[in-house]
Amino acid sequence: MKKELKVFFKIFTTTKDAIEKFMNMLNPVIQNASDDHERLYYHHIYEEEEQRLSRLVELIPLISKFEQEKDEKDFTPTNNEFNRLLQELNLEKFGLHNFVEHLDLALFRFTDTERSTLLNELRDVSYRDYQQVKELLNEINTRFDHDYVDPHAHHDEHHDHLARPASPTVVTKSKRKKGFTVGSLL
Amino acid sequence: MKKELKVFFKIFTTTKDAIEKFMNMLNPVIQNASDDHERLYYHHIYEEEEQRLSRLVELIPLISKFEQEKDEKDFTPTNNEFNRLLQELNLEKFGLHNFVEHLDLALFRFTDTERSTLLNELRDVSYRDYQQVKELLNEINTRFDHDYVDPHAHHDEHHDHLARPASPTVVTKSKRKKGFTVGSLL
Repeated sequence: MKKELKVFFKIFTTTKDAIEKFMNMLNPVIQNASDDHERLYYHHIYEEEEQRLSRLVELIPLISKFEQEKDEKDFTPTNNEFNRLLQELNLEKFGLHNFVEHLDLALFRFTDTERSTLLNELRDVSYRDYQQVKELLNEINTRFDHDYVDPHAHHDEHHDHLARPASPTVVTKSKRKKGFTVGSLL
Repeated sequence: MKKELKVFFKIFTTTKDAIEKFMNMLNPVIQNASDDHERLYYHHIYEEEEQRLSRLVELIPLISKFEQEKDEKDFTPTNNEFNRLLQELNLEKFGLHNFVEHLDLALFRFTDTERSTLLNELRDVSYRDYQQVKELLNEINTRFDHDYVDPHAHHDEHHDHLARPASPTVVTKSKRKKGFTVGSLL
């Protein structure tokens, strides 16, 4: 479990930094929104990421505490603090998933080179991290066999709709173009 | 605390039903989306509400258990299960907040009488319930004095951006109209 905790620590520290970059990008967009709908839309995404940030500020030290101070014997489903850790990690798996989608939605709108380059970087890292968190938690949830039910399992069963097609750059670009009309998007 | 639990039970049972109505409304919109951006947008909101629904399916019986089986002496910060309950309630306060915003975003788009009537009904109930949950939890968090920090406190301090203006129907409608252009919105 120590090995997994090290990975979680790295991933959630990385995504905390990514949230801050994304929030900084959204800030002027909210300030300069051209109408109420646009303002609410970005403000809403901003707040959801802000909520996630606040949770990570609590979670990261908890991961660190388990990694550094606890023994393998503490990693049992009868340990309440460990259960809480698992619950939080399961919640932040969805946090990462939703972040990837926030970035994808932003990529439709912020098509200038500077922002789309940063968004694509954040997107690629977050998607990879989401996959790894999902894999690790699947394995951990099986190992500890508590009664956790993954509300997303039925989505993942047949396909992973977050995945980019085989040749990401080319196909994704053309896919995006199809749906994109300048000025028509919120 | 029993009195508050009764209120929480009612509110979260009501919102669970509201989520299902909202998801049913979104389903055909996702199916018939005119482009990738629109599809991702509604699918994303759908999934966030689906995640909330899954959490409520766990939370509602937990509230009920505390209301029916527990004594006031169980409501202490040293009771791990009670702490978990408080944490979940604090999380679902944000769930309700985000739901109100999802409904507001949908109101910009679904302007036909049938859908906007339902959305406005859900919106009014959810906003009132959000306010009540916020108030109850503020009081409870003070009473139990754990180290919970509300990540939204700085938003609420100066204003509540969710609030509708004094004459809700008239002013909100005109406010909405300002930003709304048929066909231009995602």
